[in-house]
Amino acid sequence: IQELELQLEAIEKGGYEHFMLKEIHEQPRSIRDCFRGRLNVEKGWVGLGGIKDYEKQLANAKRIIMVACGTSWHAGLVGEYLFEELTRIPVEVEYASEFRYRNPIISEEDIVIAISQSGETADTLAALNLAKDKGATILGICNVVGSSISRVTDAGSYTHAGPEIGVASTKAFTAQVTVLTLMALTIARNKGTLKESDFRRIITELDLIPEKVSRILDKNEKLEEISKVYKDASNALYLGRGISFPVALEGALKLKEISYIHAEGYPAAEMKHGPIALIDEEMPVFVIATKGTSYEKVVSNIQEVKARKGKIIAVITEGDEQVKGMADHYIEIPETDDHLVPLLATIPLQLISYHVAVMRGANVDQPRNLAKSVTVE
Amino acid sequence: IQELELQLEAIEKGGYEHFMLKEIHEQPRSIRDCFRGRLNVEKGWVGLGGIKDYEKQLANAKRIIMVACGTSWHAGLVGEYLFEELTRIPVEVEYASEFRYRNPIISEEDIVIAISQSGETADTLAALNLAKDKGATILGICNVVGSSISRVTDAGSYTHAGPEIGVASTKAFTAQVTVLTLMALTIARNKGTLKESDFRRIITELDLIPEKVSRILDKNEKLEEISKVYKDASNALYLGRGISFPVALEGALKLKEISYIHAEGYPAAEMKHGPIALIDEEMPVFVIATKGTSYEKVVSNIQEVKARKGKIIAVITEGDEQVKGMADHYIEIPETDDHLVPLLATIPLQLISYHVAVMRGANVDQPRNLAKSVTVE
Repeated sequence: IQELELQLEAIEKGGYEHFMLKEIHEQPRSIRDCFRGRLNVEKGWVGLGGIKDYEKQLANAKRIIMVACGTSWHAGLVGEYLFEELTRIPVEVEYASEFRYRNPIISEEDIVIAISQSGETADTLAALNLAKDKGATILGICNVVGSSISRVTDAGSYTHAGPEIGVASTKAFTAQVTVLTLMALTIARNKGTLKESDFRRIITELDLIPEKVSRILDKNEKLEEISKVYKDASNALYLGRGISFPVALEGALKLKEISYIHAEGYPAAEMKHGPIALIDEEMPVFVIATKGTSYEKVVSNIQEVKARKGKIIAVITEGDEQVKGMADHYIEIPETDDHLVPLLATIPLQLISYHVAVMRGANVDQPRNLAKSVTVE
Repeated sequence: IQELELQLEAIEKGGYEHFMLKEIHEQPRSIRDCFRGRLNVEKGWVGLGGIKDYEKQLANAKRIIMVACGTSWHAGLVGEYLFEELTRIPVEVEYASEFRYRNPIISEEDIVIAISQSGETADTLAALNLAKDKGATILGICNVVGSSISRVTDAGSYTHAGPEIGVASTKAFTAQVTVLTLMALTIARNKGTLKESDFRRIITELDLIPEKVSRILDKNEKLEEISKVYKDASNALYLGRGISFPVALEGALKLKEISYIHAEGYPAAEMKHGPIALIDEEMPVFVIATKGTSYEKVVSNIQEVKARKGKIIAVITEGDEQVKGMADHYIEIPETDDHLVPLLATIPLQLISYHVAVMRGANVDQPRNLAKSVTVE
């Protein structure tokens, strides 16, 4: 029986050494699956069946609150940028564990969106029940169909990423961000906060994301080489600005979870208010420095790190010679719309965490002390 | 001249080895100074002259946004808990650097409060000007009288902590929290969101804070001993829940700034979603575990850390035998009202950071790479 189980597991891993690696590589498909029936570029249409009855209420919302934990909380932060920018609705993202114990200010006018891969996260479920008791409309973004959160919510959208076995979430995260993007675009369309030409441009770019993710996955060998250089690091910083700040947080969390390296994410400009004191030649600093709104600002943050002899590993837009010339290592990702950068910039950071963990001999799929879904408080 | 300057500096340090240590010890006085003319326990009265004309507007506010960087951002997070709990006004706390570049949703109905010790922080000033352009009412909480932020704001309250020379902010932080407490109490009183008996109880407790801070400072020797044990740590975690979560962030930032130890603050319940993977016998975990709302929850978080062989340094309420029995080290602080815990719990963490830095031979008053006020972007 033991042998059969091992063989079964090998089959389930589909030729990959670990579930996590398999799941990272599934992302072009899982993101595409998430689009199914929700995105039609030719017709210039997006929509989410699961929340159809709430479209009007969402468009008229005065405030949206997202509650989540861990990686899902990072997806919520990306969602905050997307919703505020595209729909002009103020969004608050709360740690579920904090929200539920702080007597939150919630009314019947509020919409609360819970984000959870498993749909069983204890704190998130409790936060949702609290919001429900206060009369708020509660929506869910879950991966596991029929899970507790999906049953308690008024409505919601599944991420359709397929089962995620690796404890460190990868494809579920990008699927959550995909759903949040589709949701923001749907609301923006209904609300008229987005010009038709911008809407068309963004959905056209969104449709290209799976293929662009594939192109990043093809860089696996280069990412493995970079990982080799930093595998013995005991600390790391991850910096980003705007919509890439949560990507930095998520990159840091991945490294923490599976490599046990103390990595921390920061909004790049906050570095000068403390963390820069940590920087010396031993400190790898991962920076999301893609072209776009905050590009020039991030470049100057890179210069500050270099002036303190920190090592820069930059995620850059293809063909960007400026940061290429400054960074110790760089990973090029295809150009895309600013709002969609998280879906691409996350991928190389996942792969680097994976390779570093493997090189350190860590148990990638079952990191110490962690459970796949936190069903206790 | 050189010699005279050195003598002058010695005089300015008032017998303390470093400005930071002097400023930590000034806190009973600086908090008391902050009360002057603003708190009268006998008459059951609080008020802030600087924002008198805005009291009505504050009481009617639909939303308050606080913008700040670094330590001041942590004070803002404490403010968020105080305002939401006492006044029932939703508060958002934004990194100034993020706020200014994200096309924030701001209207003439909004009140934006900037928090900055120097009143010159470039990102905070720019965020404030942006909010002003959008018609929001802008208020300031600054320490330096006549600073740029205090000049650009419609109104505000000074922290009156006196000049802060040490780069790592200590007395300015507790003064900011004191002003925010007084502000929240003033609004709550006007708005009627706080029962008279609760109001009386809280201001009576607030008035006792300076003396209780003194009692914590008397534990300096014990704190020095604890510091000795952990001075060679390369990493540390700081955990708190509710209003003590920002205290954890601030404790971690102090250690980072002056000891160059990679310390990170977390809401205690988030630990299970990633950071717990970092915990082994090498990892000191500082926990704010005072009696109050989340006490039992924090106790269970401590058990989780102990199960992974992490070292617990707990800040506890005087006489708490339960956590005393579980922690590797503990620091007792006097009992106070839940809302005022940050003003006490911060103090031992400041002293531990100070002693660790001195033992590591770091330049406490002028940590590497850091400036006292960040007047560039």
